[in-house]
Amino acid sequence: MTARRVVAFGGGHGLSASLRALRHCAPELDLDITAVVTVGDDGGSSGRLRAERGGLPPGDLRQALVALAGDHPATRRSAGLFQHRFAAAPTAGVPEESDPQRAAARTDGLAGHAVGNLVLCGLMELLGDPVAALEHAGAMLGTVGRVLPMSRQPVGIEARVRGADPAAPEEVRTVRGQHQVAVTTGRVESLRLTPAAPAACTEALAAIGAADWLIFGPGSWYTSVLPHLLVPQLADAIVSSSARRLVTLNLAAEKETLGLSVADHLAALRWYLPELKVDFVLADAKAVGDPEPVERAAESLGARLVLAPVAVTDGTPRHDPAALGAALVPVLGADR
Amino acid sequence: MTARRVVAFGGGHGLSASLRALRHCAPELDLDITAVVTVGDDGGSSGRLRAERGGLPPGDLRQALVALAGDHPATRRSAGLFQHRFAAAPTAGVPEESDPQRAAARTDGLAGHAVGNLVLCGLMELLGDPVAALEHAGAMLGTVGRVLPMSRQPVGIEARVRGADPAAPEEVRTVRGQHQVAVTTGRVESLRLTPAAPAACTEALAAIGAADWLIFGPGSWYTSVLPHLLVPQLADAIVSSSARRLVTLNLAAEKETLGLSVADHLAALRWYLPELKVDFVLADAKAVGDPEPVERAAESLGARLVLAPVAVTDGTPRHDPAALGAALVPVLGADR
Repeated sequence: MTARRVVAFGGGHGLSASLRALRHCAPELDLDITAVVTVGDDGGSSGRLRAERGGLPPGDLRQALVALAGDHPATRRSAGLFQHRFAAAPTAGVPEESDPQRAAARTDGLAGHAVGNLVLCGLMELLGDPVAALEHAGAMLGTVGRVLPMSRQPVGIEARVRGADPAAPEEVRTVRGQHQVAVTTGRVESLRLTPAAPAACTEALAAIGAADWLIFGPGSWYTSVLPHLLVPQLADAIVSSSARRLVTLNLAAEKETLGLSVADHLAALRWYLPELKVDFVLADAKAVGDPEPVERAAESLGARLVLAPVAVTDGTPRHDPAALGAALVPVLGADR
Repeated sequence: MTARRVVAFGGGHGLSASLRALRHCAPELDLDITAVVTVGDDGGSSGRLRAERGGLPPGDLRQALVALAGDHPATRRSAGLFQHRFAAAPTAGVPEESDPQRAAARTDGLAGHAVGNLVLCGLMELLGDPVAALEHAGAMLGTVGRVLPMSRQPVGIEARVRGADPAAPEEVRTVRGQHQVAVTTGRVESLRLTPAAPAACTEALAAIGAADWLIFGPGSWYTSVLPHLLVPQLADAIVSSSARRLVTLNLAAEKETLGLSVADHLAALRWYLPELKVDFVLADAKAVGDPEPVERAAESLGARLVLAPVAVTDGTPRHDPAALGAALVPVLGADR
């Protein structure tokens, strides 16, 4: 029996949680994991590197790699190195600055950068191709699985937002940049990429075509989950893939989705990719509350709602990788 | 029969050539290689990192690691990554600046940094100890052998130089900093470290105590070869070690040693460490010219002069690692 080929879409912490959960069930289910990562980040270390050096923003790619890093002490230590973030230079003798970007400008150019971002940036320059760079970085970390960008070119994210300015709650404005969209407290009315139709990473298209499962979420809905559906070639590949599809819902609304119900999250998927059919929606019973509207929203995508306790137990709205993995086993394992 | 334990002292390109040569004879002679590296660099990328972040200057350590990197394609690629130097940001749109430090200040903070310097800097911060950092970096590169700093604390290098200012050829001035000493065209009359007696790296002391061979040079004499002899604990360990000692001479005078004959190089070793006894002096016949004064200088250290063709064949004053390795085999192999 061949391995189950799973493609997980997302970016940042949400994708990281999904990948860690998949690792938990990888031995039992014999999973072959591919992460397909957004390339729209324009904030922090990634945003600076992208603006200054022109390659893909590395932060979300780095987090996916680290989530899949091998269990050997040496690869764990390399993963720690990738995550190590340079503080403001200790010898610079200037008062500490809470904004890492301003701190960097005031002290040395390393402050705020994660080492792994610099490694990825160097590899992309050296090898001239982000997929080759990610393959080598994966080897450095002994990753179980593969990390691919959704596109070889960085993209911009723009949203039309109602009430972006709290003083004008009915005004609709264009908010530009993933970081600004992620932190807006207005209501996102529409989302688009710039360029509108970036070429999809061909290796990602191949992985989708060969997949047994496609997994969307959790994560920042507008800036990490939906962008994949806006890349026309990815959307086509997702719709025409014979893989089963699972959506993992968030535990709490992020700033960008304040006012958006759990059911609204599913409606957004359908809005941006009407042809999308989903087999399962996985959600935390406590986070969902009354399951009826979510069940109806899932059904409108063709999906069955699966409720399971997948949050960490300290009350913060974070997925517990072991619990999420345990919830995934019966779902992913029922396909054969 | 146990491996021959070889400790090579130096820094920069000279040590790199020595290590590459030792790798060439490592299989035949069953060598266990340890590099002990100067920590006085204050120029370029290393100087900026040292000034801004306070750890050991990483450049010479990086070069030694890369020289010992494994032959596997993946470790070769990682070595290439360590050596990759960020250019001035391509998108910054300012005219190119020939001085990398000024270029960095004008564009982004990465310009001029080698990726390996940033990795070492991050590892030293993360693990809190340069020896642990070098051990992990060595694992990342699959090094054959081990790289140690001569001291866990960075040192300064100062020289009293006659004619540092070409307009005042008889004036003696203090020239401060490894970089300035390395490029002075005056005559170095005395050399010292600041602090004068830095604590030696204990692992380096242990390696010297257990060594079968101690190898000095080639390299910038005042800034890469002699500094080890100025660390009192290292000097004591070198003098009291039962290892055989070999000095590999340079092919041409560097700026800092203009006016210093090949024989003078050996006299300088004796001047800074009068108790030093040497078994062999290895030199290139062409570079030496008349061998008599060099033979006499070698004899004054107790050494036999070995002449061999060890330069690259394109006429530049660089050691050919394969030729140097071939010359080392009969010398190092004759100890048993």
